[in-house]
Amino acid sequence: MIGYVMDLLLSHGALDVFTQAIGMKKSRPAVLITVICPCDRLEICEDILFRETTTLGIRRRLQERRIIPREIFSIETKLGTARVKIADRNKFKTIQPEYEDCVQLAKIHQLPLSEVQAIVLQIAQSILQD
Amino acid sequence: MIGYVMDLLLSHGALDVFTQAIGMKKSRPAVLITVICPCDRLEICEDILFRETTTLGIRRRLQERRIIPREIFSIETKLGTARVKIADRNKFKTIQPEYEDCVQLAKIHQLPLSEVQAIVLQIAQSILQD
Amino acid sequence: MIGYVMDLLLSHGALDVFTQAIGMKKSRPAVLITVICPCDRLEICEDILFRETTTLGIRRRLQERRIIPREIFSIETKLGTARVKIADRNKFKTIQPEYEDCVQLAKIHQLPLSEVQAIVLQIAQSILQD
Amino acid sequence: MIGYVMDLLLSHGALDVFTQAIGMKKSRPAVLITVICPCDRLEICEDILFRETTTLGIRRRLQERRIIPREIFSIETKLGTARVKIADRNKFKTIQPEYEDCVQLAKIHQLPLSEVQAIVLQIAQSILQD
Amino acid sequence: MIGYVMDLLLSHGALDVFTQAIGMKKSRPAVLITVICPCDRLEICEDILFRETTTLGIRRRLQERRIIPREIFSIETKLGTARVKIADRNKFKTIQPEYEDCVQLAKIHQLPLSEVQAIVLQIAQSILQD
Amino acid sequence: MIGYVMDLLLSHGALDVFTQAIGMKKSRPAVLITVICPCDRLEICEDILFRETTTLGIRRRLQERRIIPREIFSIETKLGTARVKIADRNKFKTIQPEYEDCVQLAKIHQLPLSEVQAIVLQIAQSILQD
Repeated sequence: MIGYVMDLLLSHGALDVFTQAIGMKKSRPAVLITVICPCDRLEICEDILFRETTTLGIRRRLQERRIIPREIFSIETKLGTARVKIADRNKFKTIQPEYEDCVQLAKIHQLPLSEVQAIVLQIAQSILQD
Repeated sequence: MIGYVMDLLLSHGALDVFTQAIGMKKSRPAVLITVICPCDRLEICEDILFRETTTLGIRRRLQERRIIPREIFSIETKLGTARVKIADRNKFKTIQPEYEDCVQLAKIHQLPLSEVQAIVLQIAQSILQD
Repeated sequence: MIGYVMDLLLSHGALDVFTQAIGMKKSRPAVLITVICPCDRLEICEDILFRETTTLGIRRRLQERRIIPREIFSIETKLGTARVKIADRNKFKTIQPEYEDCVQLAKIHQLPLSEVQAIVLQIAQSILQD
Repeated sequence: MIGYVMDLLLSHGALDVFTQAIGMKKSRPAVLITVICPCDRLEICEDILFRETTTLGIRRRLQERRIIPREIFSIETKLGTARVKIADRNKFKTIQPEYEDCVQLAKIHQLPLSEVQAIVLQIAQSILQD
Repeated sequence: MIGYVMDLLLSHGALDVFTQAIGMKKSRPAVLITVICPCDRLEICEDILFRETTTLGIRRRLQERRIIPREIFSIETKLGTARVKIADRNKFKTIQPEYEDCVQLAKIHQLPLSEVQAIVLQIAQSILQD
Repeated sequence: MIGYVMDLLLSHGALDVFTQAIGMKKSRPAVLITVICPCDRLEICEDILFRETTTLGIRRRLQERRIIPREIFSIETKLGTARVKIADRNKFKTIQPEYEDCVQLAKIHQLPLSEVQAIVLQIAQSILQD
């Protein structure tokens, strides 16, 4: 049920969803779901949790977040087009090839995913340095 | 020691207690205990943690909670009496057979716990629909 | 359900039972139950797992175990009687106060569990050294 | 990368794949991947792990498994068609509605997943009892 | 990378750092890092996280903490000098031998760590009682 | 104690050591330690576990392992010397910069660890392609 609930929350505006294994009384293992969402998505996200899980209570709090500016670019590689996410980390930048695009190219070209990611990264780095 | 501390906290007014496996510096696995309690139970719960564990510090915060209205009913089944918890989830209701009661009936009748829960649930559902 | 199954397995001859949080496909968190039992308890333990959980398959193997000789003694303390487990670890011995007994004494005397354990341990150590 | 590797293994004949969080030396959290596969799928599964992950070694063993007979049926409900898996657990049978089908019906009818599962289960139970 | 980041944070003023295994969407296991630091260390700690990890966002909050008074003493044992941490837990005190010192003595004297800790503890207890 | 035991095992010939959080009966969280070692190191590793932990039993089995050939090379970079591990994964090779060396260079040059790793990787890749 958890996978379904995570998808539902993300498609209704949750920014991030993650799960943690917790231990409850009487040796019961359980799963704690954490949802991060904008204020105007709070009600719909809580409604989904109450509708789709067996929880009887949800704890909420206002949370301050510091995020770093990031941009998404499309670049051309010998394997095809892939997007990269460039994050501005104060004094330097980091580049992350988009997971979905690399999976696509890995399947088409029958290459290891890590090799595809390395190829995309290398081209993005050389463009960034110019 | 954890099981003992959890029982102690719950019997002194904690609403919920759960544990999480965490990793600390120098490869040390540790256990994080989270206690949810009403404000007037804060001091006794903190005292228990300081008395029964080796912790040197407790982090606390005021936490807003949204809970849904629930009621507990006793129903009669062919196996005996069992309580069910009925939660009002806005547009529909859910029914959860009480764990302790089902365990009792499963032991008496030598039945799988899940079968006992299904029997209790079925009767509760038919009553709810009337 | 897990707590109930663990109790059931232990009361039917399992030597040890423990659970682990695992991640399955499609983001589904799950619980892996490991049961250690003598060969003549294999069938009853597997039957319990098939009867009480939703599992469709159980993996089994013959497992060699090295255990160390241990003995249980009852000792008298100023708080009352408590059992201790003495394990012979080749060149030295270790002493573990029995959890259940210490919990009992802690409740009766309203003392921290760790203090009760320390008192029991100290007496057991002085007896062992004689 | 893990989600991708899990999908790849399952589509190449692995019977089951799951992950566990482990702690390694120097406080490094890591992920242990366990793959269960038929003997003739061993090589391809190992090749995928060596190709797609950074692991330098794979531990393998022959594993005996006891599985229970199960059958899949299609049943008609007021919400549409859904498959159910019926497992023969020695003295009784259990029914599990197929996850994918219930998700489909839940989306079409805008119902909680658990309600769809309950509806499918109820019809399957009444058919099974005939 | 995690072990390195933990060390870096602690050496730049973080009071405590710990990690938790979490599950993200698409079956991705991940690691959540929690850092507790004084307000004037917030910026440097966030900078380290943005510089050394691939995170794109950090959640922060002001956290109230209740800590108990503790003191560190050096004591002499037959194995050498070791420090102990004495914590004042309202109505009683607890003693924790310093991990680093005990490891040192265990290595020098080729003794089990737990035995060294027991020896240090025993002397500290007898001093405390005077 | 776990960090100490892991170090001790590795320095006495264990090939790999890792820990897992497990749940035991009565809500007790515990840690499972797995040690992989050559046959002639079995006894010393078991002795360490019995001496340094409170375990009363160790499960052991002969384990087949498939490892891939790997070599370690020293390469020169603009930041200084660093070793890289080159693994021969059947149809292609992967390169992993040695963690310890990169940490050293990151500290000396006050650079993010990931940047140091990228620099080392890039030079190793260009050498490998020649």
